[in-house]
Amino acid sequence: MKVGVIGATGYAGQQLVGLLCHHPKVKIEFLSSYTYAGMKYSDVYGVYKERLDSKCIGMDQAMERLDSIDVLFIALPHGKSLELIESMKNKAIKIIDFGADFRMNDIEVIKQWYGVIHTDKRLLESGVYGLPEVFRDQIKTASLVANPGCYPTASILGLLPIIGEDFVDDTSIIIDAKSGITGAGRKETLALSYCAANENFKAYSIAEHRHTPEIEEVLSLVRKSDITVSFTPHLVPMQRGILATIYISLTSTIDLEKVVTLYKDYYKNEPFVRIVEALPETKNVCRTNYCDISIKHDVRTNRLIIVSAIDNLVKGSAGAAIQNMNLMLGYSEKMGLNTAYYYL
Amino acid sequence: MKVGVIGATGYAGQQLVGLLCHHPKVKIEFLSSYTYAGMKYSDVYGVYKERLDSKCIGMDQAMERLDSIDVLFIALPHGKSLELIESMKNKAIKIIDFGADFRMNDIEVIKQWYGVIHTDKRLLESGVYGLPEVFRDQIKTASLVANPGCYPTASILGLLPIIGEDFVDDTSIIIDAKSGITGAGRKETLALSYCAANENFKAYSIAEHRHTPEIEEVLSLVRKSDITVSFTPHLVPMQRGILATIYISLTSTIDLEKVVTLYKDYYKNEPFVRIVEALPETKNVCRTNYCDISIKHDVRTNRLIIVSAIDNLVKGSAGAAIQNMNLMLGYSEKMGLNTAYYYL
Amino acid sequence: MKVGVIGATGYAGQQLVGLLCHHPKVKIEFLSSYTYAGMKYSDVYGVYKERLDSKCIGMDQAMERLDSIDVLFIALPHGKSLELIESMKNKAIKIIDFGADFRMNDIEVIKQWYGVIHTDKRLLESGVYGLPEVFRDQIKTASLVANPGCYPTASILGLLPIIGEDFVDDTSIIIDAKSGITGAGRKETLALSYCAANENFKAYSIAEHRHTPEIEEVLSLVRKSDITVSFTPHLVPMQRGILATIYISLTSTIDLEKVVTLYKDYYKNEPFVRIVEALPETKNVCRTNYCDISIKHDVRTNRLIIVSAIDNLVKGSAGAAIQNMNLMLGYSEKMGLNTAYYYL
Amino acid sequence: MKVGVIGATGYAGQQLVGLLCHHPKVKIEFLSSYTYAGMKYSDVYGVYKERLDSKCIGMDQAMERLDSIDVLFIALPHGKSLELIESMKNKAIKIIDFGADFRMNDIEVIKQWYGVIHTDKRLLESGVYGLPEVFRDQIKTASLVANPGCYPTASILGLLPIIGEDFVDDTSIIIDAKSGITGAGRKETLALSYCAANENFKAYSIAEHRHTPEIEEVLSLVRKSDITVSFTPHLVPMQRGILATIYISLTSTIDLEKVVTLYKDYYKNEPFVRIVEALPETKNVCRTNYCDISIKHDVRTNRLIIVSAIDNLVKGSAGAAIQNMNLMLGYSEKMGLNTAYYYL
Repeated sequence: MKVGVIGATGYAGQQLVGLLCHHPKVKIEFLSSYTYAGMKYSDVYGVYKERLDSKCIGMDQAMERLDSIDVLFIALPHGKSLELIESMKNKAIKIIDFGADFRMNDIEVIKQWYGVIHTDKRLLESGVYGLPEVFRDQIKTASLVANPGCYPTASILGLLPIIGEDFVDDTSIIIDAKSGITGAGRKETLALSYCAANENFKAYSIAEHRHTPEIEEVLSLVRKSDITVSFTPHLVPMQRGILATIYISLTSTIDLEKVVTLYKDYYKNEPFVRIVEALPETKNVCRTNYCDISIKHDVRTNRLIIVSAIDNLVKGSAGAAIQNMNLMLGYSEKMGLNTAYYYL
Repeated sequence: MKVGVIGATGYAGQQLVGLLCHHPKVKIEFLSSYTYAGMKYSDVYGVYKERLDSKCIGMDQAMERLDSIDVLFIALPHGKSLELIESMKNKAIKIIDFGADFRMNDIEVIKQWYGVIHTDKRLLESGVYGLPEVFRDQIKTASLVANPGCYPTASILGLLPIIGEDFVDDTSIIIDAKSGITGAGRKETLALSYCAANENFKAYSIAEHRHTPEIEEVLSLVRKSDITVSFTPHLVPMQRGILATIYISLTSTIDLEKVVTLYKDYYKNEPFVRIVEALPETKNVCRTNYCDISIKHDVRTNRLIIVSAIDNLVKGSAGAAIQNMNLMLGYSEKMGLNTAYYYL
Repeated sequence: MKVGVIGATGYAGQQLVGLLCHHPKVKIEFLSSYTYAGMKYSDVYGVYKERLDSKCIGMDQAMERLDSIDVLFIALPHGKSLELIESMKNKAIKIIDFGADFRMNDIEVIKQWYGVIHTDKRLLESGVYGLPEVFRDQIKTASLVANPGCYPTASILGLLPIIGEDFVDDTSIIIDAKSGITGAGRKETLALSYCAANENFKAYSIAEHRHTPEIEEVLSLVRKSDITVSFTPHLVPMQRGILATIYISLTSTIDLEKVVTLYKDYYKNEPFVRIVEALPETKNVCRTNYCDISIKHDVRTNRLIIVSAIDNLVKGSAGAAIQNMNLMLGYSEKMGLNTAYYYL
Repeated sequence: MKVGVIGATGYAGQQLVGLLCHHPKVKIEFLSSYTYAGMKYSDVYGVYKERLDSKCIGMDQAMERLDSIDVLFIALPHGKSLELIESMKNKAIKIIDFGADFRMNDIEVIKQWYGVIHTDKRLLESGVYGLPEVFRDQIKTASLVANPGCYPTASILGLLPIIGEDFVDDTSIIIDAKSGITGAGRKETLALSYCAANENFKAYSIAEHRHTPEIEEVLSLVRKSDITVSFTPHLVPMQRGILATIYISLTSTIDLEKVVTLYKDYYKNEPFVRIVEALPETKNVCRTNYCDISIKHDVRTNRLIIVSAIDNLVKGSAGAAIQNMNLMLGYSEKMGLNTAYYYL
């Protein structure tokens, strides 16, 4: 299969390219970059030298080469893919979009949180939320997949098995999430400079982070009634990884072992979710497509405390995109994701 | 004043020594270390060369020199200071203990969480909890001060102004705390090795961390009724700093500005608490004795989200000890804590 | 092919396992560990959960299972493999040893620098130095390969093309090398703790590091006369990567472009050496088997300054071992080393 | 004394401010900043909140207030101070300039390496190179001090005692230097972003770094004949600290102890140079004004290997400026530099 990547030089884009290089069924047809058009990909990221020395092309050229590809990945900032995808309505290509433009179905919510205005409801609804653990069947036949946000992936996977269970109080969900610095993207700002981010820890966008409605929409859909959550993101001085600590009050006493079994059963056929005994650490999921989940019971306050960890650039982004592509093309879901392992 | 330090080579101990060196009224009489007795202090920590080249002494020698000092700092692991302090009952020295042995008043709670068994209730009760923001007057006249834990300092200071307010639901308190690696102490274990801790983030001791009852006892005392909290600590790949993200549900609608004013009023005479507009970052408090606090309102879920940041080795430990010493000796509370500033 | 790994839980061992998992022709028959015998491999390194859950075995068991394998990797501390390998003389298995015991040929030098005493000169000489860029043909037919040290790999590859050229002064070689913390191994020592190694930089073992004679023996062999070098290692607060800055005085004026061409020609058929324009950075080689080399001319002092970078755990260790295994077994040299790419 | 700081918000500027706050004889009269004029200093660097909340002023305002100050610190990028200082010729203020414009005396060299063109030779020569270990007496009476570069400080101090000794080959000096990221300044560039600099190590500006002629001019002056050196800087993923590894060939055999004694004697009255037994580590000098030096002999190649470490922002910049100010004002040289100690 031939694929193209628009936005190939951002952090998510480059991780996608790094995994696509390694996928046995894929040929990269073009890499497009706004900033680096005309430059060799291996001059942008030296690690690719002698492996991917072709030049980045600009958006215009990418548009001209759409007919030569089967799958298009779009890894652009939020709000940039709507128009682009509208212009491709009549193309036969499958699209996997990394942005938020097609992740939610509620036009008002998208407008409110992102300022993105959809006019074609049918197009919006044709976009399937690319979380295989919820929407696997729809992804298989979709031509447009909205790849989930990194925080939502960690958060939703941590909550899925118990959403709707009658022993949980759905109004009590608090998600305290922590992300490595790549989560903030590749930008020339002092806030992301080494000297500002290193040896520092902080919260940001409290009560107003854009991933909040995305988490809520998916959970509400699963729950079949509206769910509202508190979501607080933090920046950790490390490159990769997200860890979400999730609090949920219980309405009755529980047997923790039964809840753990419930999680294990729920995910027993999932290739990329692991229920772990020891508490998850980002190091155990980095450079893999796994989500590690552990469930604890705070008996004194009768709350469940669920910890969920992913690599924001793999399961939270490029790995999920590969998983989605595999589903869309009928490949084995794990193809190309069974990479070499690195503890460090 | 002449001071001695027992346990001078742990991370808290060495930070105390670093600040004592700089205090205008203090002369360090001895430094005691179990592991490094007989070795020059500057050979343990090279930074002290030509500034503090005296040798560490052992515990026996320290005991013999108690009469030569006015103030004794004890920075030993939990459970080690009880017996030591019992043996000093008849000495006229003032003691500041970094351990947990005298932090709480409930003998059963201490036994349950620490395995430390108090038999002398009067001695236990003579120990004043060294948080000046709550117990300033008692500290001034105390001869035994139990220096607070680092997590409790950040947590309690974040909650103090609103505990007991009728718009908050005291049963809903969740403290999600994150600490730099020094918080785990100076130990030869793989878990604290560079390669395990670097580029990693994890929770630990969920629903069972020993600082939980300490937080609860102080809040309950202020609230004048029992308070139970969920407390989750995490390890951040950085050296210093604690940031606590605190969630509390509201029982009625509030005006955030009024709550912020309430915080500002509460702390208006406190030399080391700053209510900040921008969200706290550990970098802004590291190597200072400040606690930075910011209050946000999650309108959608009607929760307050309070962020509190301190340096675990200064306000969370050695700086608080100096502040307590100043109070006990009648010095200006800020003496020796008005150090040079380092953003980096 | 069936392989066994002795010493599978050290940093080099686990990286080897991580790459072996991914090699299309390899089946891991056993993993042996002194410290973790009886424990699941995925409990030692959580990243392997659901991928490698088999238990580590002890040395005795490993010895009993030698007949079931084709290739044995030994990743033990220096001095531990000599006896082990002597005991396997009559086995038909191919051995790749990560230790230094068989890297050099001079019995006196090995004794002097490592305290390892060889008595079987024939066995010692049967060991081929596993640097394919020098000894490819011998490796193909070897049954015992001594995998090179990480510093020697970076240093020798940086110097190979000009050793023996008449415009260089062979007596002037200075190698100033810097390594990530994994280079020091997996040990429970304060010096390697996060708080000691982070935000710190230091030199160590000046003029006495054991990799010095290894570098000299290989360079001398290539040069066909004795070469002595100054070699200084340093520790960098990062996990992986070695960068060597090599200084060599010139005996006549040179044309830098010609020297660069000489390097490019020398390595033109090498699958894992890249002569780069921009200065090498460890980030560009980490988690790859590449060695990046750049050559600069300090015109004012007429010295060549060569910068060479590798990942100490891949090209400097486990990746080289896979490359050697491929050569020994007649596989494509790059098999299993064409991994997914990670810039971060 | 009243002081003003121009360029107060760069990394060197803010460290200077952090130390000035703490100096017992100094009152900061104004802080000037091009980028942040009109903004509170504590809004630029949150650590200063409640300690330094005054607003930064612009250059014009700073110029108007020159008559109100005794000492002016200028911490601007190279090339910016020449014109500024020319305009102040008739002012009675003492100036300490952090830039390179007045560090060297050779107009041609300054023009060649910095593009800065001096026309007033007398003004240029009135600038004293602010390295007290060489120019203490001149600094005492100077009205213009050129604060040394960070690399030159570490390099020159490492070499001073043996320059000119007949057992060293002055043509053989190689300085391999490594700096924390603050050394590159406070800039919004991808190369200094967390994700690019973290977990990375690289050399830069090989054979062309601007600190080279500065090192050479001072050494030549001390040697009383021209000295040329090879100087290679590297970037270390840490905030602060410089470590220079210096190689120098010997012309005869030496007794290392005698050389060490020579160093100790040379520096015996220096308040901020420590000859250390254990190898220097940047951690031992960070946030202090010390330079730690260790001397090793590579007997096999008959080279001295000297390791020198400083904090680039203190002894390499702001601390040296305070030391110079103290000398210029007749204060004790250590005043304000006897700060609290931080190992971490």
